Amino acid sequence: MTTMSGLFLGRFQPFHIGHLDGVEQVLQDCASVCIVISSAHVCHMADHPFTGGERYRMVKHAMLDLGIEAERYDIIPVGYNHSTPAFLATVVSFTPPFHRVYTGNPQIMSLFSSWRYDVLPTRSQLTSGKVVRQKIAAEADWERWVPPTTAELIRAVDGIRRVKLLQQAANQGG
Amino acid sequence: MTTMSGLFLGRFQPFHIGHLDGVEQVLQDCASVCIVISSAHVCHMADHPFTGGERYRMVKHAMLDLGIEAERYDIIPVGYNHSTPAFLATVVSFTPPFHRVYTGNPQIMSLFSSWRYDVLPTRSQLTSGKVVRQKIAAEADWERWVPPTTAELIRAVDGIRRVKLLQQAANQGG
Amino acid sequence: MTTMSGLFLGRFQPFHIGHLDGVEQVLQDCASVCIVISSAHVCHMADHPFTGGERYRMVKHAMLDLGIEAERYDIIPVGYNHSTPAFLATVVSFTPPFHRVYTGNPQIMSLFSSWRYDVLPTRSQLTSGKVVRQKIAAEADWERWVPPTTAELIRAVDGIRRVKLLQQAANQGG
Amino acid sequence: MTTMSGLFLGRFQPFHIGHLDGVEQVLQDCASVCIVISSAHVCHMADHPFTGGERYRMVKHAMLDLGIEAERYDIIPVGYNHSTPAFLATVVSFTPPFHRVYTGNPQIMSLFSSWRYDVLPTRSQLTSGKVVRQKIAAEADWERWVPPTTAELIRAVDGIRRVKLLQQAANQGG
Amino acid sequence: MTTMSGLFLGRFQPFHIGHLDGVEQVLQDCASVCIVISSAHVCHMADHPFTGGERYRMVKHAMLDLGIEAERYDIIPVGYNHSTPAFLATVVSFTPPFHRVYTGNPQIMSLFSSWRYDVLPTRSQLTSGKVVRQKIAAEADWERWVPPTTAELIRAVDGIRRVKLLQQAANQGG
Amino acid sequence: MTTMSGLFLGRFQPFHIGHLDGVEQVLQDCASVCIVISSAHVCHMADHPFTGGERYRMVKHAMLDLGIEAERYDIIPVGYNHSTPAFLATVVSFTPPFHRVYTGNPQIMSLFSSWRYDVLPTRSQLTSGKVVRQKIAAEADWERWVPPTTAELIRAVDGIRRVKLLQQAANQGG
Repeated sequence: MTTMSGLFLGRFQPFHIGHLDGVEQVLQDCASVCIVISSAHVCHMADHPFTGGERYRMVKHAMLDLGIEAERYDIIPVGYNHSTPAFLATVVSFTPPFHRVYTGNPQIMSLFSSWRYDVLPTRSQLTSGKVVRQKIAAEADWERWVPPTTAELIRAVDGIRRVKLLQQAANQGG
Repeated sequence: MTTMSGLFLGRFQPFHIGHLDGVEQVLQDCASVCIVISSAHVCHMADHPFTGGERYRMVKHAMLDLGIEAERYDIIPVGYNHSTPAFLATVVSFTPPFHRVYTGNPQIMSLFSSWRYDVLPTRSQLTSGKVVRQKIAAEADWERWVPPTTAELIRAVDGIRRVKLLQQAANQGG
Repeated sequence: MTTMSGLFLGRFQPFHIGHLDGVEQVLQDCASVCIVISSAHVCHMADHPFTGGERYRMVKHAMLDLGIEAERYDIIPVGYNHSTPAFLATVVSFTPPFHRVYTGNPQIMSLFSSWRYDVLPTRSQLTSGKVVRQKIAAEADWERWVPPTTAELIRAVDGIRRVKLLQQAANQGG
Repeated sequence: MTTMSGLFLGRFQPFHIGHLDGVEQVLQDCASVCIVISSAHVCHMADHPFTGGERYRMVKHAMLDLGIEAERYDIIPVGYNHSTPAFLATVVSFTPPFHRVYTGNPQIMSLFSSWRYDVLPTRSQLTSGKVVRQKIAAEADWERWVPPTTAELIRAVDGIRRVKLLQQAANQGG
Repeated sequence: MTTMSGLFLGRFQPFHIGHLDGVEQVLQDCASVCIVISSAHVCHMADHPFTGGERYRMVKHAMLDLGIEAERYDIIPVGYNHSTPAFLATVVSFTPPFHRVYTGNPQIMSLFSSWRYDVLPTRSQLTSGKVVRQKIAAEADWERWVPPTTAELIRAVDGIRRVKLLQQAANQGG
Repeated sequence: MTTMSGLFLGRFQPFHIGHLDGVEQVLQDCASVCIVISSAHVCHMADHPFTGGERYRMVKHAMLDLGIEAERYDIIPVGYNHSTPAFLATVVSFTPPFHRVYTGNPQIMSLFSSWRYDVLPTRSQLTSGKVVRQKIAAEADWERWVPPTTAELIRAVDGIRRVKLLQQAANQGG
């Protein structure tokens, strides 16, 4: 069996079924997945409503709920980086060794490819963070687009009200 | 009489009559106000034309002009912060203790509320920084929207020409 | 049974038996432990030889080796912070909620106490990171002072040679 | 003959014939030019496709190709700065003394003027970085808008594919 | 009468009678003093025990206690800066215009002189921050070396215990 | 003939004959050398007296004085980096491609080796920056330890007085 490890990068604002689909795709190819929460330091903004810790819990709870063994996944929040190359180097430095990078983000593709990493596209077609945030703000049937554990956490941190408040502000131009 | 202290946050680009209204509102509720100049490190940009020091002087001159006693106000410029939580912690760490946060900014509301601060809305309806900058750029009757001390300072630093130059650049797409 | 969660902070250069002792102490008191790897961004220096990712693996492998359930621990690397208050806020923001802070570091005690966290001392008397690094550099019976999984990882990354090289340089004054 | 030195600032994404025109303008006025590559730390983004090192080579190769003597030019990449004033101070601190600043950027004009530097406008009308990036993405006759050495470097780093990938992502909203 | 303004820089860990002496020296020469609290972002460390906000209050309370008019002084905390030149530029940018720099720190002298500021030495011989911190840690007649308002504030924030804890840690090698 | 390029890293406080020896060693092995000025953002401190720009000029003037062709060398100042991995990535990103790293610094050796770069030691035995700074401070026959162009520049920026002032301060404990 493969012993490869895959890196899966995302902001997870919030962690939705498209992300879960991506994680499962990596675990079909690889023995383990390292899930990197990027922009972990940004929160309480319209496009970044949840904290790094809240997003860590969304991912962790999904892994526990799916019954994935602890050996098969790591979850690493990566915060502030002052430059594009610093971001790459921090991700590499904070994580266990990986053999492939899975991402739907063309900037990440371009960056990691230029450092000779093997990059595979995983932009799940199921949904996007932006769409999910808009559904939450509209309280419009958003729960089916996130794992049940994400929905539970959003309620627990009073997240619907938070997303609504931040979206309204953004629409008004702050 | 109350001994509460209120925190009043704003960018003050420039300090206008809506801000002054906010400060007076805090001083009606509280024994003292701590006025935090946020984004103090950003200047000479279309949406951030004035330096931290220029904005400090706008606020200080308004306080002196109103004859508010030195015991009743503090003015603290807060510059660069690499993350949302770092911003909150820096504000708390740089200021005297406060019991309430007054702000019109939904991001600040959301952030300070999540750390269990008591937050009160103060978005004055009088005007906004954006509108005042546009009036300055157009030299369109802008002086009535700022305290006289702000108008004086803007003239003293050749601010009308500066705002005009920076706005034109922004309109041309830089 | 308790549902409290404890925060356990350390640099883990390397993760040694005193740290393991600390983690076990937290797990006796609390339902779960959040292990924060501080200064995760510093490596390849005499007092900081291992990368954030290497230290993450030291801690993770120890948890797996002890058979601790995934629900009971989290491991969060925290990197660069530009200020003391920013460090506290980043730790709080990147982690699940916690009820107590366990640390042997007086600066961390002082800092978290000043923000009204409940802080408990855990400076294990078993050993210290400095002593372990010196033993590694001297190849002097160092393995008994670290969990077997740490020893394995240090060998796998050619860590003895690295520690030796960096210590010599420091002794020579760089 | 003059012994003045001129500072010429730009992002050079990529270095095009308008920039070359600017450098030549400075060299008509001054004994030497110091070419500062700003935002050197940003790359692999739609508006910032090339690395600091790639842009350094674009400028260096153009100077060599024109046969300008090494005494007459310096090329200094300037990366991350956390604030507007820090940017100015870093530029001043990293470069040989200069007597004039040449720039087409109104923010740079406003900033350096406010520190009492002599600023001269050089927005060449020939083209802009944005237009050149769009032509590269469309593979539309872009080579005539850059020096031959820039075209060669863009091909050598597989830059057409990179610009295309990053532009598509930006158009899709990332 | 003079309309000059003097800049007075210090860390104020804590604000002691030597600092007060310095401020009074500036106010003999100048119409006003701008007191800059440097390293405002560092606290809860052996050599930096007090927060920026606590030091702000030490200075402010001393000014109020002396009855100095609000027109004659400003107090500006300056936090993190990523470089030596950035520090200078931030100080200049955050403060009202000044004509002279007063400091006892040779690095500050060297730096500001190199940017052509007029620098005057003010290393008061009365005491130093280091000596005062040692006296506080030893509870050895420390109060006579600080203004009464500083002593009051140190007691109010339980500062003696803090300084003691941090000094012990530093002596033990942390 | 070889087309290899070598990276040569140093702080150059100041650029001395040991550094020059190192550059010549690289040029014997390689077609070109990229000279990286590290810690370019630190200056006016006892161990870092000269600015990035002053050190750039020291290196550039030495290259011109030796008559080395412009094709064969590049000089790149690298300033602030918030982490060890970010430093490596910034160096790689700001420079033309290189095939080997030449350095006398064990931390740099360890870091670049861990990223699989080919690292060669070049700690010239001729002298060290520390020794040269001490000789300058003592005005003790220092000129023979630096290239004539370095000596000239140090005099031109009044560097002897600067080094003396900063060294005295360091000896007094600041």
